[in-house]
Amino acid sequence: MSDRFEMRLAGTGGQGMILAGIILAEAAAGGAGKNVAQTQSYGPEARGGASKTEVIISDTEIDYPKVIQADLLLAMSQEACDKYGREVKPDGWLIVDTDQVKRVPPHPRTVRAPITRISVEQIGRQITANIVALGVIVGLTGIVPRQAVIEAVERRAPPGTKEINLQALQAGFAVSEHTRGQNG
Amino acid sequence: MSDRFEMRLAGTGGQGMILAGIILAEAAAGGAGKNVAQTQSYGPEARGGASKTEVIISDTEIDYPKVIQADLLLAMSQEACDKYGREVKPDGWLIVDTDQVKRVPPHPRTVRAPITRISVEQIGRQITANIVALGVIVGLTGIVPRQAVIEAVERRAPPGTKEINLQALQAGFAVSEHTRGQNG
Repeated sequence: MSDRFEMRLAGTGGQGMILAGIILAEAAAGGAGKNVAQTQSYGPEARGGASKTEVIISDTEIDYPKVIQADLLLAMSQEACDKYGREVKPDGWLIVDTDQVKRVPPHPRTVRAPITRISVEQIGRQITANIVALGVIVGLTGIVPRQAVIEAVERRAPPGTKEINLQALQAGFAVSEHTRGQNG
Repeated sequence: MSDRFEMRLAGTGGQGMILAGIILAEAAAGGAGKNVAQTQSYGPEARGGASKTEVIISDTEIDYPKVIQADLLLAMSQEACDKYGREVKPDGWLIVDTDQVKRVPPHPRTVRAPITRISVEQIGRQITANIVALGVIVGLTGIVPRQAVIEAVERRAPPGTKEINLQALQAGFAVSEHTRGQNG
């Protein structure tokens, strides 16, 4: 990877995209000692219940904290995939939740996983799908050490949800083992 | 106010500055229909447990999502006040938690309030000091409608904490009534 790694996590409100971004950012800054910037935009571009967070990880100081061309897109809704799916670098990652996204633009490194269904079936809760997705991202890319993201989940999980979120993270890691190298 | 209003909420990790920023940003985008960008930076500039979030509110699209010169600084730690206290616009707001901040640089519109102590004495919890501070900010500036921030607190409060966070917000509104017009 180059010095700068740009990620966009996009879905709908209530899917916990912002919390996933905070955990990813803290894991990168803490465990790996990188510079990290995380941005949410609200307003006209987030109409209709859309929710998006951007996380930039860099070895050097970050002057511009937003995505220029994504190294990774997580699309947790069809709208998110339609809007951002064509703006992923050719050697980047396009990760889609197949429960939410049916149409995917062609991309050489597309990863399709039933993220929401895995959360419901393995954790018993839909609300942890964001953390399953986080496990998939970290498992596939190695952008932050697994231990760093485990510790960030422990710190940031809402009260009473630490155990299920750690289980969701492990479920995501497991998905990444099965889908590694899968092509679009 | 000009078209763009820049806020910096700064303290230490565990004080909930990021959650306060998310609530403020959502309230502005939802209730007032503004463009809002919210940024966290991690890494070298956040060493030693510092935590900071920046919220930009604008009538027009936001090209650069970080603070250039703050219209408002909330300083919840001495370190935060030392670092950012001199970068507030002369007609901006400098709000400090007097339980955490003892030395304050001269500023024509300084508001001193015992935010943490109010949270402990009135809510019985230190953890809600961030929401007391949010009430102070919104009460003083009117940057977002009170009702919009109440609804954002209801949506974003961690499970089981909605009531105490709403009480904390009201406590902050009340503080703003007493400190309005206070000078540094």
